[in-house]
Order: sequence, then C-alpha cells, then structure tokens
Amino acid sequence: MFQDFSDQTRPEQGPPRLAALRAEIAAKGLSGFIVPRADAHQGERVAPRDERLAWLTGFTGSAGFACVLSDVAGIFVDGRYRIQARSQTAKIFAQEEWTKSGLSIWLKKYLPNGGKIGFDPWLHTAGWLENLEKELTGTEIRLVAFENLVDRIWTDRPPRPSGPVSAYPVELAGKGDETKRAEICMTLTDAGQAACVLTLPDSICWLLNIRGSDLSRLPVVQAFAILLSDGQMKLFSDPVKFEALGPDEDIELLPWDAFESALETLSGPVRVDKASAPLAISRTLEAAGIEISWDEDPCILPKAKKTPAEIAATTEAHLRDGAAMVEFLAWLDSEARKITEIPDQALTEIGVAKALENFRRATNALRDIAFDSIVGSGPNGAVVHYRVTESSDRTIASGDLLLVDSGGQYLDGTTDITRTVAIGEPKEEHRLCFTRVLRGMIAISRLRWPKGLAGRDLDAIARYPLWLAGQDYDHGTGHGVGVYLDVHEAPQRLSRMSGVPLRPGMILSNEPGYYREGAFGIRIENLIAVEEAPVPTGGDPSREMYRFSTLTWAPIDRRLIVAGMLSDEEREWLNGYHAEVLERIGPRVGDDALDWLRQSTVPV
Amino acid sequence: MFQDFSDQTRPEQGPPRLAALRAEIAAKGLSGFIVPRADAHQGERVAPRDERLAWLTGFTGSAGFACVLSDVAGIFVDGRYRIQARSQTAKIFAQEEWTKSGLSIWLKKYLPNGGKIGFDPWLHTAGWLENLEKELTGTEIRLVAFENLVDRIWTDRPPRPSGPVSAYPVELAGKGDETKRAEICMTLTDAGQAACVLTLPDSICWLLNIRGSDLSRLPVVQAFAILLSDGQMKLFSDPVKFEALGPDEDIELLPWDAFESALETLSGPVRVDKASAPLAISRTLEAAGIEISWDEDPCILPKAKKTPAEIAATTEAHLRDGAAMVEFLAWLDSEARKITEIPDQALTEIGVAKALENFRRATNALRDIAFDSIVGSGPNGAVVHYRVTESSDRTIASGDLLLVDSGGQYLDGTTDITRTVAIGEPKEEHRLCFTRVLRGMIAISRLRWPKGLAGRDLDAIARYPLWLAGQDYDHGTGHGVGVYLDVHEAPQRLSRMSGVPLRPGMILSNEPGYYREGAFGIRIENLIAVEEAPVPTGGDPSREMYRFSTLTWAPIDRRLIVAGMLSDEEREWLNGYHAEVLERIGPRVGDDALDWLRQSTVPV
Repeated sequence: MFQDFSDQTRPEQGPPRLAALRAEIAAKGLSGFIVPRADAHQGERVAPRDERLAWLTGFTGSAGFACVLSDVAGIFVDGRYRIQARSQTAKIFAQEEWTKSGLSIWLKKYLPNGGKIGFDPWLHTAGWLENLEKELTGTEIRLVAFENLVDRIWTDRPPRPSGPVSAYPVELAGKGDETKRAEICMTLTDAGQAACVLTLPDSICWLLNIRGSDLSRLPVVQAFAILLSDGQMKLFSDPVKFEALGPDEDIELLPWDAFESALETLSGPVRVDKASAPLAISRTLEAAGIEISWDEDPCILPKAKKTPAEIAATTEAHLRDGAAMVEFLAWLDSEARKITEIPDQALTEIGVAKALENFRRATNALRDIAFDSIVGSGPNGAVVHYRVTESSDRTIASGDLLLVDSGGQYLDGTTDITRTVAIGEPKEEHRLCFTRVLRGMIAISRLRWPKGLAGRDLDAIARYPLWLAGQDYDHGTGHGVGVYLDVHEAPQRLSRMSGVPLRPGMILSNEPGYYREGAFGIRIENLIAVEEAPVPTGGDPSREMYRFSTLTWAPIDRRLIVAGMLSDEEREWLNGYHAEVLERIGPRVGDDALDWLRQSTVPV
Repeated sequence: MFQDFSDQTRPEQGPPRLAALRAEIAAKGLSGFIVPRADAHQGERVAPRDERLAWLTGFTGSAGFACVLSDVAGIFVDGRYRIQARSQTAKIFAQEEWTKSGLSIWLKKYLPNGGKIGFDPWLHTAGWLENLEKELTGTEIRLVAFENLVDRIWTDRPPRPSGPVSAYPVELAGKGDETKRAEICMTLTDAGQAACVLTLPDSICWLLNIRGSDLSRLPVVQAFAILLSDGQMKLFSDPVKFEALGPDEDIELLPWDAFESALETLSGPVRVDKASAPLAISRTLEAAGIEISWDEDPCILPKAKKTPAEIAATTEAHLRDGAAMVEFLAWLDSEARKITEIPDQALTEIGVAKALENFRRATNALRDIAFDSIVGSGPNGAVVHYRVTESSDRTIASGDLLLVDSGGQYLDGTTDITRTVAIGEPKEEHRLCFTRVLRGMIAISRLRWPKGLAGRDLDAIARYPLWLAGQDYDHGTGHGVGVYLDVHEAPQRLSRMSGVPLRPGMILSNEPGYYREGAFGIRIENLIAVEEAPVPTGGDPSREMYRFSTLTWAPIDRRLIVAGMLSDEEREWLNGYHAEVLERIGPRVGDDALDWLRQSTVPV
C-alpha cells in the first residue's frame, strides 16, 4: 500500500520545539525566523528531511509557513487548509490567513520598532525576497539570510533521499535528450545568455529523459544543474543515485557540495528563474560578480507542450487507469448496495481508498499513486483537499455522496480523475448540483477557442451553469499535468489567475465542483489535452483555433444526472463520451465490471 | 439632421500640408513631429480645431496618429480603420499598424542614428511619454515637448468652441453637486492628497451636475478644474459659456489662460491622472516643485456607478428611444417589402440613416444623436465602424442583411442599440450565424457572477456559441455608457482587456457580433446595468453575486433566428424579452407600428 492513513504529527510536539527554536533565535541575535514548507526545489512534494514546518508545528498540508518571533508565532495557511491546520497545531501557533501581504502586515504589527528576521536562502526565491522587502519599505524590519535554525535543533533529521535514477525511454518521451538540450541551448543563445541554472527536478528529469525515486508520488531526482549555451552540462546531486544509470559522457556528474563553487566559475549572463531558484544561487553569482539574466526556467514551456509520443503514451496509461477505475466503481456500487441492504455491513473511507489502490496495483504497472487519494463521503466531500486518516475516517451511509479524487503514476503517464458517486438513493438537491457541475465540465470538454488565449480567458465557461443558480466553487477549473512527472505541472492552468497562453500538447485537468460545507461535495474531473482544431464547415478559415481531446475514460454517475437540464448538445456529448468509455474500456475489464459498465453507459 | 454624409476630407489635401509641416520641423532643428488625433481632454470626440490629424492627412477616424520625419511620414491606425485610412489618405503617408510598440519600432528603424522628435505636451499624457521613453531606452532618439507645429501652418484653424453650459437637473442625477464634491474631497483626504486636477470633460460635468455644448454627439463643456481637498474649486474655460448658467458661489470661474499659473500656486500632493492628464500639467507642477500623486481621476469610478435616479432616468430614455426604434423598424420592414415587390423602388443606406434620425427627432426630446449611425448593408455590415458617406452609400438589395447601430442623446439618458435585420428572404448561413450571436447575447443577459469579477472574467461567455462553430468577433463584447454623457464611458468594459471589477449601477453594452468580410455583418446590442442579484432558491447564501438588468427594448428579428438552436432557457429569455418589449413599448407607438410590433414579438 503506497498510501498511509496514520496521523503523522501530534499538536503536542509543537510547543517544546518552538521553545528550542526561540532559544536559537535569541542566541543568534535575531528577532525571528521564517519556516516555510519548502525545499530548495520549490515543489509541492518534499522529502521527510524538508518537512520542517510539520516537524515544528504539526501542520502537514502542502503549502504554508510559520514565522516565529520571541513572543508570538504565526502559522500562515490558505483557505484550503484552515480547518486542517487548526486541528493539527497547538494553540501557541496563531493561525493567520496567507494572503498576498499577510506576512508583511503581520511583521509590522508585531515588530513596530523593527528587527532582524532570519530565513534560509536555500528555501526562498529571489522573487519572494524582492516582494517582501518592497512591502516592508519604510520599516526597520530587515530580512537576513541565515543558516537554517530548525536544522540545528532537529537532531534526528532524516538524511537526503538517495533513490536510484533510471532512464526514461525515448519512445515514450518522443524526443532524445540531446535534441532537447540542443533546443534549450538555442533558446539561451537567442536570449544572449551564456548559461542557465536549473533547480526544478521535473525540468531536469524532462531535459535528461530520466526519472528518479527521491520522493513519494513524484518520480523525480533531486538535483541542481548548470547548462552552458555550448551544450556542456553539469549535474549536482548524490552520484550514488546515478550508478545504475551508467555514465553519460555529455553530462558531468558532481556531488552536491561542488555546486556553489561551480556557480562561481561561470561567465554571465546566467539565466536564473526568479520564481523558483533559491536566493542562495543568485546571491552566490552576485558575490562572484557574474551577471544574472532573470528569466523563466527554459524547460518549463517545452516540457508542458507534450510530444505526440507523450500524448500517445499517456493515452495508454489513461486507458489502463480507466479500466482500474471501472473495476473500482463496479465494486463500489456493489458495496454500496450491501450497506443499504445488509444490516451491520459497513464501508469506510479508508476501506474505499485501499480498495481503489488495490485495483490500480492489479494493473501490474502502477509505479506509485499520483497523490494521496481524496475519499470524502458526506460532509468530508466538501473539504476540497481532504485526506482521510484513521482519526477522520467516516463510515459511509446510504444517501451520502462519495467524492473520490485519485490518480496513478505509470511509466507511460500520470493520471488524475475525480468521480462523485451516489451511495443509495441520491437527494434531489444532490442531482441538481451535480448536473450543474457536469454542464460546466461538458462545456469545457466541448470548447474551441482562438489561439493565444489563456486559462483566465476560459475559466468562466465552466462556472456559468453554477453561477446562474447562485453557486460557485473556490478553486481553479484545472491545473497542468505531466507525463510520469508532476500531477500539478506548471505553467498551464484553467484559472482566472493564469495568463499563460494554452498551446497544443498541454495537458490539463477539467474539474469543476460544488461544495456545501457540512453536507456534501461534488467534483467531476477528466484530464484533457490541447490540440489544433480543424476549421469546421462554415467556420472562419483564417481563424486558428484550439480544442481539447479527452484522456480520461470512466463513467459519470447517471443516477446523479437530471437529463432534462442538459441541452441537446450536452446530452449528445455525454452519450458519446459514455459510448466511447464502453468501447475503449469494455475490452479491458472482467465480466462483472463489463456488465456494470454496460448499465452505466446507457444513453440518458 | 445632425448627421452629415459628405466626404469631409480629400486625400489630395495631404501632400502640400505635409511639405509645410516638414519645413517647420526643419526650421526648428527637429527630426520629426508627432500629430495625434487628440485634444487636451483625451476623449474620442474632438472639436474641429483639434482635428489636426484629419487636416494634415485626410484620415477622419476617431483614433490614430501620424509621425512625420524628413523623408518618411507614417500614419498609425488600428485594425478597425485600416480600410478607411487607405481610402482617405495620399500614398505619401505610409500606413502602419498601431500596435503596442509600433511607434518605437518605427522610430528605431527610420532614425538609427537618433534624433529629436517634437510633440505637443497638451496632447499627450505622462503615461504615454513614460512608455515611449522606456521603449526607446538605449537609442539616441529624444522626445521633446514643443509648441504645436501643425497649429503654426494651419492658418484658418477654427476657434475654440463656445457652446453654452446648462445645469443638469438633480432629480435626474440623483445626487447634488455639493454632495459629489464632498465625497471626492473625502477621497482626496483619505489618500493624503491636497488637491486634484481634472481634465476629463465628462468628469467635470458629472461633478458639477452640468452639461455643455462644445462638441457634437457628446454634451460636455471643455474645461480644466482644480479641486482642493477642502472643497474649493476653480474652473478654467471660456467664461462666456457659463453666462446662461448664472454664478455659483462655490466655484471660481476663470479663463483658460489662468490655468497654468493656478497650478503653480498649489500645495502638494496634487492628484494627477497619468492616463488622461496632459503632460504639460505635470511638467508645470514639477517645475514649480509641487509634489504629484499619480492616481486615477477620482470622478471616474463614482460617475460609472450610476445612482438609482440615473438608472430610472435612462430607463425612461430607453423606453422613448425604443418606441422610436420600433417605429423605425416597422417602417424599414415595409420599405424592404417595397424593394422586393415594386420595380425601381430603391432604398439606400443614407436613406435609412436619415429616416432613423427622423424617428428619433419625432420624440421631440432628442438633443443629439449619440454617434454617427452605422448603417451597413451586405458587405458594408462587415466593416465594424462603418460610417456611410455619399461616396460609400449602397443601394440595399433583397437578400441583404442590414446592420443598424445607433443611439440618441436625451436629457435623461444616452442610448446605444444595434439591430440586424433581414431584407427579403435571409440565407440559411445568415440565420445560423445570427442565432449564434444571439445565443451569446442572451448568455450575457442571463448571467449572474460573483462580486469582484471584471469584464475580462466574463467576456468568453458571449463568444462560446460562435467559438464552437469556428467563428468569433474582433472587438470587445461591451463598453461602458454614460447618462446623457459619453456613449463610450470608462472604466467598465466587457472585454478580455478589462480588469476593472464590475459594480452595481455601471451601464454597459452587450453586443456580440459576427462579420464575414465582403459578405455581411451581424451585431445585436442591448444596454444593460449591473445590479445586486438576490440569492435564488438553493443558491449559496454567503455568495454575493451581481446580474444585469436590461435597459434596451426593441424586437430582435425573428426571421433570422433558428429556434431549434436555442436551449429551453434561451428561448424562454427571448420570448420573455419580446413580451416585455410589447408590454412596455406597445403603448408608445402608432397603430401601424403596434401591428408590426405584435407580429414581431410572437414567441418562437
């Protein structure tokens, strides 16, 4: 079982550790210290040794930070994690809303006479420091790069991960690593840059056609890289991880501690990404007098634009995953019938999560799950990032909606699918809300749009049916997804916040939802890929447009659909989708699941 | 007749004037001079004396500029005016695309060794200069504020307009001018500003509850104003214009030439709008050592949020205008029948425009038309800003679509309506495209959305039906509209370009369209006002939402609607709208028009 349902932290651990940290802060002559939930690679997943925020406070969410002063300690989380942070942390950590200027306002309040706030320059970016210093202009509060004081007191801190690296087949990647490097070198040359520093593990893995095993859920290797515009590349990590891979004469493999001195020998301009590179890197370059060219990590965009081979690979991964989902959904329906019909028959969220993982494991191709499954029944379904633990586990009851958001990491692709299922007889209100969410999800599926538009230009399309009913959801409509890489991939998004133009090959989720606190949650999610749209009959020949192709194939619960609320075109899309699910997934499942699938894909 | 259909310029006028301007440029030791289509008030309408661009080049469009160098002269226009500029100007003016950096790229190309480019600091804003100087960084091209060289050679330049000013009734405005000034003073005080400079005529008219008659189509007075945060106000204009209004003891009325010295006596910080105030103002303040606080004109937002009295007033104006439109549309249908049935019976675009204006004049309440009517038949309908002249006038033929976009200026409101009408039997392709445009227009009419969103978050809703068919339109979905003020009012817009949150009371147009070059144009336009939306049954009680109320009442051509393409909700909206048109407008029209109206509002 990849997933673990234990409660990994206890609120009681926080106060003594906080006291120890305060002693260090005082000893160093600082007024405070910032503890982010981050490592030097700024990703959503970190190794156990980088879980400093959880170690200090108890809070295990994927985003947030603490700021510790001598008399007050604030923990800053966003709306998703408000409830979770409250239950996981001791009261000594004052919970604060993580808004744009939240930290600077808080610092000005508690340090009216100024002070020195320490931070670890490997855990924060130059962009972060620039913004925060701007917000603190006119105060006597100074931000000071410092050794990590949590690491000084965390005596049993785990070692660096050292999982083996393996080659990623070029047949799946669709492009050789030499070709990729040549293209990135061309980008650097065109921009007049002599080199670039890479710090994002998925950029490095994409560029070298490798995958790693340093983290759970995310098949990357932790490393830094320097690529010169002439093609020379140095990789800084733990060389032991690369032993099984064998030597590559184009890449010089060096230990972690060779990185800083290698930076100092570069000739500028050196391309550094303000949004993701640790501040320590730009400080090192500046100290050595090397010109920095602030610019986005050059791998981000080409990585996001998947090759036809990657789309073909992930299509196969999605069919495999779809078959596992169909087996799971058929099983779930029979279990749901049992709890309705047989006394003392119980089904819990953890039971569902375990069964789902087992169906995926039965494919014999599952490398990992893509994230800890969200299995939320009844009111738990309304917690958008709910992760079931032994203490939150709930017995599922007839009349509940059950929201299941999960995914798999396969060598040929990363999946992410949400289905919301009626347990027993659904209520009318469930069906109305579900149908509105479905209409938004279908609207995105059917969308065509002019080349050049970004997620923010399209997001409203998914919300329109909910808005008409005075409803909405407080998250984006979709995030980027990688191919056997990050299930939350930059830069593409279907969100009011995203100005990045969508391009062919980008994979996104399409996941509108509706959440009624204390009652139920609904989300329907397919992955979709951007592709060129041919000009339809009567369309403007000179207007270049894009559309989405669907990657995810699994039935959408017909019992929750009010067919009369769908337009003819929406009904046609749904029935066509279900016919294709039956055609594509049917041959891949057992007889019982096939029977269930036939019933579940009857036209509405 | 307000409208005039003559061709007011000739391409031949350009070359000798250009030669004279070049002689001035050389005599002053400059390399070039910029001639914008602008006055000191940066509006879309200018007085004849400010039509420098048309005088020099022949081009009469509402936006554009020329840059004259010794050996080349460029005229920069946007996509709307490409065809018009080509036909109105001599070849000696090289037509350039007016893109974001168009001018700086052009200057770098033609002045590789640098040079001094003159411009009139009363016709350009500080924001304009800042952007252009940034784009020219690293070159030897310098921008030099200078006397206006066109004015030196334009010997018969008309005098300043001196139309009388009248009071605007407080019953229509809904708020007294003292109250408005007190509120603006509060805004200044809150922002720590000692004064503000106002240069936008519609801001000044709104603030003082007055209207002027200096320009055609736009009932404003040209003036500058200084408002101190203690409430003292000085107005700079031609005092003769205010004679009929009588003295106002709160306002000190001064001649134009007192303005600059008054600026020099101010205490800072003085609020100046970088986007609209002439550079000459900020230069004067800077030279006098007075601190500038760059900030938006403080009247823009309160003016855009109409009072309930303004909404009531413009509602009445729209009913009056709707009755004129119904009389017009009934007449148009009978004329269309004649040209189909009676040989030698002809109907021209100018004939239609004159008839329409006469129906509006027959209300006995028309102060002006809101803009030169767009009456485009067949291929002329595809020219988005088409203005019919004697040379472009076209005889309307059976089988044409006729696009009529027009509006009126009434004391109680400004209207702007577009209807597209079938002349004779429409083609199937016309009906398909029209129905898609209508579906987008209905989607905006039915919209509800969460408080805080801007036009750019909503614009896609109107385009979705067209996008699905591979079609689109190359303009925003809607613009702001004033109340007996500017028919193109800032800051609200339904456009991908607009990040201004929509607020209750804002009036916008809702005007999706579709244009097939060389064939036909379709646009359907109603004005709509933002209002609070009550929570519907089942809606989230804590979610504050807005919706639109409709202001415009006139039938939408049923012969162009493919009813089977509408969803049940869309059909319901359309039939409900038509029922309300009949109920509201029916009692206001003559018997023949009422018969026509009954037939034209039968449910589909």
